[in-house]
Amino acid sequence: MQFHLNGFTTGDPAIAPRHPQAGETLDTVDVLIVGCGPAGLTLAAQLAAFPEISVRITERKPGPLEVGQADGIACRSVEMFEAFGFAEKVMKEGYWVNEVAFWRPGAQGEGLQRADRIQDVADDLSEMPHVILNQARVHDFYLEKMQNGARRLTPDYDRALTTLTRTDDPDYPLVATFDCLDAPGETETIRARYVVGCDGARSTVRKSIGHELHGESARQLWGVMDVLPVTDFPDIRLKAAIQSATEGSILIIPREGGYLVRLYIELDALHGDERAADRNVSAEMLIEKAQAILAPYTLEVKEVAWWSAYEIGQRVCDGFDDSDRGGNGASEPRIFIAGDACHTHSPKAGQGMNVSMADTFNLGWKVAAVLRGQARPELLQSYSEERQAKAQELIDFDRDMARLFSAKPQTKEEEAQFQAYFQKHGRYTAGVETQYAPGLLIGDAAHQALAAGQIVGKRFHSAPVVRLADAKPVQLGHAFKADGRWRLLAFAPTEDTGEAGGAIAQLCDRLDGPEELLHRFTPEGTDIDSVIDLRAVFQTPHREMRIEALPALLRPKKGRYGLVDYEKAFCPAVTGPDIFDLRGINRAQGALLVLRPDQYVAQVLPLDAVDAVADFFDRILIPQSAG
Amino acid sequence: MQFHLNGFTTGDPAIAPRHPQAGETLDTVDVLIVGCGPAGLTLAAQLAAFPEISVRITERKPGPLEVGQADGIACRSVEMFEAFGFAEKVMKEGYWVNEVAFWRPGAQGEGLQRADRIQDVADDLSEMPHVILNQARVHDFYLEKMQNGARRLTPDYDRALTTLTRTDDPDYPLVATFDCLDAPGETETIRARYVVGCDGARSTVRKSIGHELHGESARQLWGVMDVLPVTDFPDIRLKAAIQSATEGSILIIPREGGYLVRLYIELDALHGDERAADRNVSAEMLIEKAQAILAPYTLEVKEVAWWSAYEIGQRVCDGFDDSDRGGNGASEPRIFIAGDACHTHSPKAGQGMNVSMADTFNLGWKVAAVLRGQARPELLQSYSEERQAKAQELIDFDRDMARLFSAKPQTKEEEAQFQAYFQKHGRYTAGVETQYAPGLLIGDAAHQALAAGQIVGKRFHSAPVVRLADAKPVQLGHAFKADGRWRLLAFAPTEDTGEAGGAIAQLCDRLDGPEELLHRFTPEGTDIDSVIDLRAVFQTPHREMRIEALPALLRPKKGRYGLVDYEKAFCPAVTGPDIFDLRGINRAQGALLVLRPDQYVAQVLPLDAVDAVADFFDRILIPQSAG
Ligand SMILES: Cc1cc2nc3c(=O)[nH]c(=O)nc-3n(C[C@H](O)[C@H](O)[C@H](O)COP(=O)(O)OP(=O)(O)OC[C@H]3O[C@@H](n4cnc5c(N)ncnc54)[C@H](O)[C@@H]3O)c2cc1C
Ligand SMILES: Cc1cc2nc3c(=O)[nH]c(=O)nc-3n(C[C@H](O)[C@H](O)[C@H](O)COP(=O)(O)OP(=O)(O)OC[C@H]3O[C@@H](n4cnc5c(N)ncnc54)[C@H](O)[C@@H]3O)c2cc1C
Repeated sequence: MQFHLNGFTTGDPAIAPRHPQAGETLDTVDVLIVGCGPAGLTLAAQLAAFPEISVRITERKPGPLEVGQADGIACRSVEMFEAFGFAEKVMKEGYWVNEVAFWRPGAQGEGLQRADRIQDVADDLSEMPHVILNQARVHDFYLEKMQNGARRLTPDYDRALTTLTRTDDPDYPLVATFDCLDAPGETETIRARYVVGCDGARSTVRKSIGHELHGESARQLWGVMDVLPVTDFPDIRLKAAIQSATEGSILIIPREGGYLVRLYIELDALHGDERAADRNVSAEMLIEKAQAILAPYTLEVKEVAWWSAYEIGQRVCDGFDDSDRGGNGASEPRIFIAGDACHTHSPKAGQGMNVSMADTFNLGWKVAAVLRGQARPELLQSYSEERQAKAQELIDFDRDMARLFSAKPQTKEEEAQFQAYFQKHGRYTAGVETQYAPGLLIGDAAHQALAAGQIVGKRFHSAPVVRLADAKPVQLGHAFKADGRWRLLAFAPTEDTGEAGGAIAQLCDRLDGPEELLHRFTPEGTDIDSVIDLRAVFQTPHREMRIEALPALLRPKKGRYGLVDYEKAFCPAVTGPDIFDLRGINRAQGALLVLRPDQYVAQVLPLDAVDAVADFFDRILIPQSAG
Repeated sequence: MQFHLNGFTTGDPAIAPRHPQAGETLDTVDVLIVGCGPAGLTLAAQLAAFPEISVRITERKPGPLEVGQADGIACRSVEMFEAFGFAEKVMKEGYWVNEVAFWRPGAQGEGLQRADRIQDVADDLSEMPHVILNQARVHDFYLEKMQNGARRLTPDYDRALTTLTRTDDPDYPLVATFDCLDAPGETETIRARYVVGCDGARSTVRKSIGHELHGESARQLWGVMDVLPVTDFPDIRLKAAIQSATEGSILIIPREGGYLVRLYIELDALHGDERAADRNVSAEMLIEKAQAILAPYTLEVKEVAWWSAYEIGQRVCDGFDDSDRGGNGASEPRIFIAGDACHTHSPKAGQGMNVSMADTFNLGWKVAAVLRGQARPELLQSYSEERQAKAQELIDFDRDMARLFSAKPQTKEEEAQFQAYFQKHGRYTAGVETQYAPGLLIGDAAHQALAAGQIVGKRFHSAPVVRLADAKPVQLGHAFKADGRWRLLAFAPTEDTGEAGGAIAQLCDRLDGPEELLHRFTPEGTDIDSVIDLRAVFQTPHREMRIEALPALLRPKKGRYGLVDYEKAFCPAVTGPDIFDLRGINRAQGALLVLRPDQYVAQVLPLDAVDAVADFFDRILIPQSAG
């Protein structure tokens, strides 16, 4: 955490200085977010990082979520929480999925036996764990983050969107009207530059832009309940997939706090037009079913904290924005949809909350960059392109997953296949396999070999390093916060310690001139790293480095006092394989990575490819000065 | 974190259910704490864990501390914060002291050169780092902890203690009067069972019980300031001890946030009766002096966040309570003093805040145990015994330290000695060397060899393990919270997996009978682990264990539902040396450790020494049932 740059302040450094409009209820805003689920809150928390952006977030319900819904938090989401600054809270409070147990009847079809027990998250898949925590608590952490932003953003509850239209107004083209559920008969109108519909599976925003969810709805019915159980089943504190001989299957997800457990229980398939509601599923029914599946083990449910019945429907929209669909046929997108509003899926893969958050983590920095005048509006088209493809992939994956769960494995081979599937998709469900296609924001793989373990189009894969100035062992990826900044990450060739004449010094020279890249895109009067943040990683042990010999760009003077930022240079971890080995960085040549503000690897390039970097940014960013 | 034991609740699990008297201003209380420094707040946070104990904490100042004073947080204090549940906040926000640099003039007495650079905290000294953070932020975390307790405890500011007397009243013998500084002329009286004076170096409580600080006051004057500097001195983000040829010495302590730095600057010695105030020390003077010492490096101070001038005085009281000194010559202590109220010292060793917190961490559980009817009042005498000895040791250490800092090393040998001293005392300043003497609360070392790395009388030394039920890698020491409970920690012999007939099962049998130890000291209707908490560590890898075969005592049913507590059994870490190797546990015989509620090792015994354990507790605890 860096703070006190512009003077010492007392109190919690996570609380930003108050903006003059903090807490005001504005009726025209830069961004209107509809819906306070994980998608809406991720976006609101992201935008709250920028005091100059005005935001409202509205929610139909009368207050924050308190219980139920999703609970699986993939490694990649925890990495994102780290960028938001609250990963440690989630890791402290949540259950960690360390291993998965598989149970099946014995060879003669009798009873239940533990068939296998595997590691849940493969070694070095992520520096973060796979965590289970009540979705409501994730909401709480986002709400706190928003509240700590300069504008002290809080949701407007009891506001149900009824209509959304796009007008010709050049500034605030979008007009949204809400029913005020706390004042029956009253309505409220909000005008906005951008509207993001995070309003869930029955999205009003989606309907307003004429999109529809497509896809077959599978007919499997699942019950889910959060219970306080007493059982003699040995693996009640492990994630456990149990397939009984004749009673169906159950998935046990242990929960935070050491006692609570979530059970996903297979119910009979739905027939014809039958809906989940037709079944009159009750908590008692779910308990009985769970008991039957778990027999001969006993299950006594002492309290049901929450339960629900689910019909598995895998559906996705063919576009996630209103481009070419706006009231005026405008092609520039102004209205976006995210999360369940544009893709719904089975809870089985535990993807709902994670993918919804990933949607708006993708969108947030783009909207911010355009609103802040840093980036060209074309940037916004990439949201639908990138996330629609991802959602489709998820739907396909999810459908396979649901089928697999519903089909009883009959043979040894099918059983083995089931487990293999679980393992194979570990990377996928962890969220680290998302790969955006080459295009405006993602380069080609021509120089991928320079950093074989940092795949172009995937998220940056963190590794341990030592921060040069204070010799602190840190995760390199944790230096990259959700602050809207691009990163240039320079890996030095062997023996380059940053001294004059070396590749790193030359790179800095080429970036730092008054006409050069960094100055071109950095607004006058702001810090040199405020748009593009350069960091360097050396191969030399930190005690053999001379920090005083680093180029000025790696010791930049910042803020109103010109204080030196000492957190730009890193060295190999003292023990274990270093980041060059772990991530396959070419030791002889080094490498230059361009990371997007959402931590995806945009480019892998040779250290001297400054022109390529300039070309890349020229297509996306708007020059801020003569440079 | 364990929660939801007595039913699912929404919201932050760190916030305890509200006590009926929460927030009430009581004029008779169990414990009155005077002073809101680190000593007072540690005690208040500890007592806030027990809803049945009523507490008030008063402070002369009008509000919480915001800036200045101490900032060094020793590893042992971070371990204690972990027990309080906020270590991760301190670690996130604070500066980590990883290495220390030593600077001296060159061989010809010219300029400054880095003479050495050493690791600050030795490997495996503690699982926690040495951290630097504004004392005010430590206060904030304690205040939050108090506020989250069942009684929602907050300090009463603007209350200056004027008199404290001990009367014959059998219930509330202590009468304290306060000036209400927010209502001039008004006073307030509070009656209490116990009073703890945490009111700093000029303690009114100390005076009221007739104690005095003894010891010489060294005559060295030091200036301290927290600044935002710009400098070309390379090690400005490392803890650095700099001794100049002719201008004296300076200690650089980098601070939280990446820019702030604390400078301790040597000023000229005081002469005769001269006091620090006589010198008219100013921030400008300190800056000039710092510049002179750091030359030829430049130092530009952009902002002074806080500064102070210190005369080093090393003093300690000969008793920390009023036993044999109470108004009625009563020998049972009722009034205690802690922290700077009973020992003052140089800031150089960075011990002030740490030792003050350690004082009341020692006292808190004892007062709580007596008030809750668990322990005999004799327990309270051990506070002064244990902590007075520790304070004297600190004073001795501190005096050496101050002398060493003031004396300019003249020869190579003296320089080497200076550094050797720094290294040797790393363990000491980390706070992990405190060792309480054998007595009521600490056993002899007869069986020390069974657990050579868990020294009787020292704090329990944590090590990584895997929690059996959920396969989570955890620090064993972090299972022990500041909840007033004793721990019995059973290390299993080789191949004992807890199954019937083994040493662990036999131990459980002997502890668990209706007449036995655990039942004897556990109040009817409370959980079996509410006074003494048994945990076991096995040598068998967790995947080879059968959790269902563990004795009932290691899977106890708790709370109103009889839910199973699955966090009692641990196995070796999957990689690296295991806890048996790391801590020298006898693999063939195992070992039985008794840990005090403040995590000190009270006894190391053979696994079958249940009689010795019973004898130990019989001397301290009060039987609660027929057992
Ligand atoms: C009842 C329920 C149970 C679930 N159970 C599971 C589970 O067991 N496992 C799992 O993995 N996932 C589960 N999910 C799915 C998971 O919660 C979602 O995938 C995730 O919340 C999607 O996030 P979102 O932000 O896109 O949408 P949501 O979380 O659905 O948030 C949408 C928000 O918009 C609000 N809203 C809707 N319309 C309007 C309007 N017109 N005006 C204003 N506000 C509006 C809604 O009230 C809601 O708060 C469940 C979802 C629901 C609703
Ligand atoms: C000005 C100052 C600067 C310091 N600088 C450093 C430093 O640079 N480095 C370092 O390591 N240590 C420093 N210390 C020492 C360190 O802060 C103390 O060792 C530590 O705070 C001791 O904690 P404590 O709780 O025992 O006492 P304190 O923190 O002194 O707390 C005592 C509290 O009691 C209150 N109080 C006093 N009398 C009364 C009364 N009659 N009624 C009600 N309340 C009363 C005081 O206002 C104060 O808040 C400094 C201390 C002070 C006071």
